Amino acid sequence: MKFEELQIGMSAETTKTITETDVVLFAGISTDINPVHINEEYAKQTQFGGRIAHGILVSGLISATLANKLPGPGCIYLGQDLKFTSPVRIGDTVTAKVEVEALREDKKIVTMNTTCTNQRGEVVIKGSAVLLHRV
Amino acid sequence: MKFEELQIGMSAETTKTITETDVVLFAGISTDINPVHINEEYAKQTQFGGRIAHGILVSGLISATLANKLPGPGCIYLGQDLKFTSPVRIGDTVTAKVEVEALREDKKIVTMNTTCTNQRGEVVIKGSAVLLHRV
Amino acid sequence: MKFEELQIGMSAETTKTITETDVVLFAGISTDINPVHINEEYAKQTQFGGRIAHGILVSGLISATLANKLPGPGCIYLGQDLKFTSPVRIGDTVTAKVEVEALREDKKIVTMNTTCTNQRGEVVIKGSAVLLHRV
Amino acid sequence: MKFEELQIGMSAETTKTITETDVVLFAGISTDINPVHINEEYAKQTQFGGRIAHGILVSGLISATLANKLPGPGCIYLGQDLKFTSPVRIGDTVTAKVEVEALREDKKIVTMNTTCTNQRGEVVIKGSAVLLHRV
Repeated sequence: MKFEELQIGMSAETTKTITETDVVLFAGISTDINPVHINEEYAKQTQFGGRIAHGILVSGLISATLANKLPGPGCIYLGQDLKFTSPVRIGDTVTAKVEVEALREDKKIVTMNTTCTNQRGEVVIKGSAVLLHRV
Repeated sequence: MKFEELQIGMSAETTKTITETDVVLFAGISTDINPVHINEEYAKQTQFGGRIAHGILVSGLISATLANKLPGPGCIYLGQDLKFTSPVRIGDTVTAKVEVEALREDKKIVTMNTTCTNQRGEVVIKGSAVLLHRV
Repeated sequence: MKFEELQIGMSAETTKTITETDVVLFAGISTDINPVHINEEYAKQTQFGGRIAHGILVSGLISATLANKLPGPGCIYLGQDLKFTSPVRIGDTVTAKVEVEALREDKKIVTMNTTCTNQRGEVVIKGSAVLLHRV
Repeated sequence: MKFEELQIGMSAETTKTITETDVVLFAGISTDINPVHINEEYAKQTQFGGRIAHGILVSGLISATLANKLPGPGCIYLGQDLKFTSPVRIGDTVTAKVEVEALREDKKIVTMNTTCTNQRGEVVIKGSAVLLHRV
């Protein structure tokens, strides 16, 4: 989408079930082998009651929504703030929503409100993204 | 490491070469199929001159260093700020460094300075992490 | 760890849940497509009652413990003996333990006792590793 | 193959190119994140001159040959001895050869000579396997 077409309040979403495979692969990609992600016996003893997904893995859904949908290909991702507000369990279905919050016309900079919720509507990640618009 | 053992200035690192496999798998995990990551012909025409890794993928090395090394297993990741300052190309070797920046004793909250650099010493991600210490 | 710091009886562990994803990926990496690993209908009819993990896949946890922890990076893996004493089912959580058994100072060769147990304490792999220490 | 059909000297082979993807995935499966496997800058400084494959990963080709070809499905893998005699670099093509070495008729136990060589004919793994024949 062209910068001129963007308006405050426009939004887009991506929804995906977070699988055991996602967690296993992300552990390998990142080398983040925290037992809460890869050791079910350990994770059962924690407050989470079982293995949870890496927060950064889940935030990939925000990146996907920005890149694929709004503003879409051609933007440059300058920054992302993330607050991990609830755990995501294997099998949870997460929706990332991005919404245009501010537009700075002289520098073509877009600020997006970014939120991830699970299948029960609980917010699991809150934050904001800053992008440079180039199209 | 116990909260009482943490000191401002302590640091730890993780180094990994970012491979094409990492990018392909992260595209699948996250659904971020931005052409700059998966379309070499498109990416060659951009300022990057070829496919680059997802910023969020690279930031997984920060998560790994926090989880595996400092403060280590048992912490709860509350938040992460990320500024993507330079692109990471396939084949680049990235070092994530985390350093204790502030300790809030009453709530056992740790703030870490988090930086990723490439094999030429260029900063590719800057930011900070906030963790709740539970051990 | 330096060769001089190693002592007989020192030990280290790695624990991980063996997932279906691990088995699928290892089948692809190794080309070991034994039906007992990839065909649930066949595996249900065997004494195992369902798919089991490849023995060599599980022994990767031994390699990980040697490489990541004791003796740690910088050693050269010269040999490994493996006895597969019990099957590992998908979902089992395996702990690999390595323990210094003998030190040969003139050649800087370390022999490690290597054992994998499941979440019920049953030994699934027994054996020993030989490493050349270089640090 | 039936136990009665096995003869000393019978052999079978599997050949596969060891890719960067194999190494990345095996690092994730095993949690073996030795820098010699995942950090090209580090590995370039070692005697290997670049990243090498995990020895246990390569030995998966032996397991594959036993399971897929000789003696084939239905055997139970009791043990494997491995000597890692040369490094395997990313891009090397490895052939695992297994050969019947001894047959113990009363217990239906098969001992196999197992050898892996690279595309230049250099032996990279030597060892032997013991299997229980059930068909």
